[in-house]
Amino acid sequence: MTIRQIISPRVAEPPPRLWSNCLRAGDTVYVSGLTARDLELAPTGGSQYEQARVVFERMAQLLAAAGGSLRDVVKLTVYVTDITRRDEVWQARAEVFDGAFPTATLVEVSALAEPEIAVEIDAIAVLDQGGRP
Amino acid sequence: MTIRQIISPRVAEPPPRLWSNCLRAGDTVYVSGLTARDLELAPTGGSQYEQARVVFERMAQLLAAAGGSLRDVVKLTVYVTDITRRDEVWQARAEVFDGAFPTATLVEVSALAEPEIAVEIDAIAVLDQGGRP
Amino acid sequence: MTIRQIISPRVAEPPPRLWSNCLRAGDTVYVSGLTARDLELAPTGGSQYEQARVVFERMAQLLAAAGGSLRDVVKLTVYVTDITRRDEVWQARAEVFDGAFPTATLVEVSALAEPEIAVEIDAIAVLDQGGRP
Repeated sequence: MTIRQIISPRVAEPPPRLWSNCLRAGDTVYVSGLTARDLELAPTGGSQYEQARVVFERMAQLLAAAGGSLRDVVKLTVYVTDITRRDEVWQARAEVFDGAFPTATLVEVSALAEPEIAVEIDAIAVLDQGGRP
Repeated sequence: MTIRQIISPRVAEPPPRLWSNCLRAGDTVYVSGLTARDLELAPTGGSQYEQARVVFERMAQLLAAAGGSLRDVVKLTVYVTDITRRDEVWQARAEVFDGAFPTATLVEVSALAEPEIAVEIDAIAVLDQGGRP
Repeated sequence: MTIRQIISPRVAEPPPRLWSNCLRAGDTVYVSGLTARDLELAPTGGSQYEQARVVFERMAQLLAAAGGSLRDVVKLTVYVTDITRRDEVWQARAEVFDGAFPTATLVEVSALAEPEIAVEIDAIAVLDQGGRP
């Protein structure tokens, strides 16, 4: 077992010496708090639903690069700036997850990285175990 | 090793396609952010202390269903809406944990799922290792 | 594999029955949300940068006591009270980490334990795997 950095060509890494988007240690994969950004790291904006869809797409790409998929996610932590609209995150999540859903925590924070960022989501996944039931 | 969904008859699962309360992957158990709710998922209300007691009771039931107990919890993340009353969470925790306590993070967030919800707590536990010392 | 409490003589433990600073379960180490405090647990104050430096120093001491180092950290969760100054945390982090950086989540919360506390950071590390690449 070693610790490997997982990079996807479809998910821009931050500038050097800030953080890694994804690390794999044994079967466990840690995904950084992802926000809705394009390949130049510019926020893509949009509703909480639209941003959550972009976040889950970026998460899926990172997990694919790690050799897994969203089926392997066991824990999501969701930070939103307006919890009254959390059903938008729920809708986006219901469109991309299946079977027994990941465990999840969802809280409203006072601010995320930039004013137009409405949602940030990090994840822990366990690969090569057949995914969630 | 497989990923199993852990369900307790004493802890209401959310409606389908939202999240799982608890997943076990190998020896590691992930518990969703729990709030003080009854078997119909209605918030039970009460002080931060009372809500924390309900949360820890639900957590204990899920861990029991997974084959473990609160003795196996290694990490707690506590979100409160009024950090000046955090000693209420501490009191509740001191009544249900023993030995070397779990690691913990406690922060105040701007809002939780519903106005009457004062505390949300998620956990990671490691089972079948004899528990914390 | 057992669960061990990790104590460093250079990092004050909280009073009994609150939380443990650090637990090791197998190769995985869980570090509590750390703030900038001295050996009497008094907040050391200072800028977000200065506080983050103290937090990472405490984290390094705990990981050393566990048999590892900051090279083994795979996940950081950073809570700040003023996200507009987050580059101060970034600067502190860039001074103490190397290679592929840990995954990270950084959010602004409405309050931390005491008014002068500007940053709290918890971590998960995976030891004895050669560290991050």
